[in-house]
Amino acid sequence: MDIKQLAQEVYKRTNVETTARDVEKVLAGLASSSHFWEVVCAAQKPFSVVAEIVGVLKSEGLVSIDEEGDIHLTQEGMEFLKSSRITPRKDFTCQACEGRGIGLEKLKELIQKFDELTTDRPKAIIDYDQGYITTHSVISRVALMAERGDLQGKKLLVLGDDDLLSLAASLSGMPAEVVVLEIDDRLVGYINEKASKLGLPVKAIKYDFREKLPEEYVGYFDTFNTDPPETIEALEVCMTRGLTALSGEGCAGYFGLTRTEASLKKWNQFQQMLVNKFKVAITDIIDNFNHYVNWDYLLGSIRDDYTFVQVKPRLNWYRSSMYRIETLSGFERLENKPMPCELYVDEEALIYRPDRKR
Amino acid sequence: MDIKQLAQEVYKRTNVETTARDVEKVLAGLASSSHFWEVVCAAQKPFSVVAEIVGVLKSEGLVSIDEEGDIHLTQEGMEFLKSSRITPRKDFTCQACEGRGIGLEKLKELIQKFDELTTDRPKAIIDYDQGYITTHSVISRVALMAERGDLQGKKLLVLGDDDLLSLAASLSGMPAEVVVLEIDDRLVGYINEKASKLGLPVKAIKYDFREKLPEEYVGYFDTFNTDPPETIEALEVCMTRGLTALSGEGCAGYFGLTRTEASLKKWNQFQQMLVNKFKVAITDIIDNFNHYVNWDYLLGSIRDDYTFVQVKPRLNWYRSSMYRIETLSGFERLENKPMPCELYVDEEALIYRPDRKR
Repeated sequence: MDIKQLAQEVYKRTNVETTARDVEKVLAGLASSSHFWEVVCAAQKPFSVVAEIVGVLKSEGLVSIDEEGDIHLTQEGMEFLKSSRITPRKDFTCQACEGRGIGLEKLKELIQKFDELTTDRPKAIIDYDQGYITTHSVISRVALMAERGDLQGKKLLVLGDDDLLSLAASLSGMPAEVVVLEIDDRLVGYINEKASKLGLPVKAIKYDFREKLPEEYVGYFDTFNTDPPETIEALEVCMTRGLTALSGEGCAGYFGLTRTEASLKKWNQFQQMLVNKFKVAITDIIDNFNHYVNWDYLLGSIRDDYTFVQVKPRLNWYRSSMYRIETLSGFERLENKPMPCELYVDEEALIYRPDRKR
Repeated sequence: MDIKQLAQEVYKRTNVETTARDVEKVLAGLASSSHFWEVVCAAQKPFSVVAEIVGVLKSEGLVSIDEEGDIHLTQEGMEFLKSSRITPRKDFTCQACEGRGIGLEKLKELIQKFDELTTDRPKAIIDYDQGYITTHSVISRVALMAERGDLQGKKLLVLGDDDLLSLAASLSGMPAEVVVLEIDDRLVGYINEKASKLGLPVKAIKYDFREKLPEEYVGYFDTFNTDPPETIEALEVCMTRGLTALSGEGCAGYFGLTRTEASLKKWNQFQQMLVNKFKVAITDIIDNFNHYVNWDYLLGSIRDDYTFVQVKPRLNWYRSSMYRIETLSGFERLENKPMPCELYVDEEALIYRPDRKR
């Protein structure tokens, strides 16, 4: 098979459109790492696509899998790389800021305070597709909002908060008020308890985003922050809730979007939704901004037919790009109503469910 | 006047839609700097909007201008800030990478080589709206392309190259081939001379992007790079040329877009064009990535009715966000034909021309 045929075979197996360049990127990843999760992290392609590319490369004899689940290029594989002129992936990520562009020097005290406050944080659980970001990620997110003028003296809505961004933001002393809408009782209780103990201007309320937004919060906030599940339906519901909560023009929304659970086809569809339907401008897309701390339930929740996948990650491999959107002059609010939606399951999802749509 | 009325007055004077939040951002800039160009740089709003906001604040007695052209908040201005709860702009930009997210440690040799090679580079001239980016910006751009797998072993098109990106890229030894299409004879000659002297795989050809793309370059490249003039028409022509030059799906385009000459309204229009008409995904928007070296003709080419504007910039204030777009599976090429267009002049342009459209 040539690279194009490999890509077609992967498309057939995953139902996610796959290009020759996608295969090339996985091969470039394999040229510098034998660890599946490192390759997923570097390839910036949906999990299922990366897994199947490696699967097809294995059937073709271009890679072999050892007892630890590590992936090695065979002699034939190395020749294939050479003849296709594929070289190891280059990495020029800034070491100081991990590529986010936000300096952490002025934030050391906040980092320490946050870590101390949250040592007893609730664990990520599968029920709500949880997984939280590293302290450096969450503090950088606070700094990004502050730098863009969206935090100091502002009212912030956090839609879903297993990251505990509400606590990080309010510990900075900058926001006037922070409201958390969150489905998980454990987190609602935890955030309210910490906030009340420290006298922070944070209030957490139980909320399922498929319900309409509480009326008192329609048009109430300056800024919203969320990490939507990555089906197109869930993205639409999350953006609707966030934007409905904003007070008008010149307000901002922040959220993460991965490449691991969203193909660039989906990115394009979602971007169409943002600029056409929601009529906002996308001001920032910062690659690999949010790094997720590895969560306990990963290996039990994903496919188990490939040994190289059932390997404990050696790095915080799951990442998302940071989006910032801004509302424009003439901003019009959408109708606030219940929206049922498919939350977590499409063909690009990480979690494997036998009943998933294909 | 309250902030909302200030914004309306500015809209009336500039014909660029202006929100209360825009005025707020300029005020936050004025709270930390008295230098007009620093305020423009921080405010991230069209030049004309920032100038008129300061102009209106002056008429309202909220700022005063000293003999040097520096802008100072008056007592009344400071009270206005306080009552509006506006605080000085926060800056958390990573010092190591200037916020680009690209580390320069591995690139020191390339930086030095580029600087040595280009000491005698042509000056930026007004005829083609020129202005070139700093060495750190151009080298970071090369590294970004390399990191994303768009440079090593690839064919790169540079559409307009007063930045001398072609030389920087080829000095890295990574691209297989670089073609420059450029309207300025001086640059065509300069690039070809340097390339031939060093045996670099670069060829520069004279080209006006309103003409159709030379047929031999249709579908020839893996990656394109450009810095379009920022009228909607010019953006459309530049993207058409760049995308017409790409070989198919999974290829990438890189370009800068400012806030200084493009409002977020224009960003939204342009983003609609990218995702609807051109059907690409926007993978990165990196704020303030490209820093421009101050050019000699600035003060002679802009409005001279405000003394605070006619001040020599004390910093490289003109910046642009780095966009990366990627073509998707099913990529279809557009028709290759001549496209006449308005290049530089709309109401958000920096250059002042008495005949400009209003």
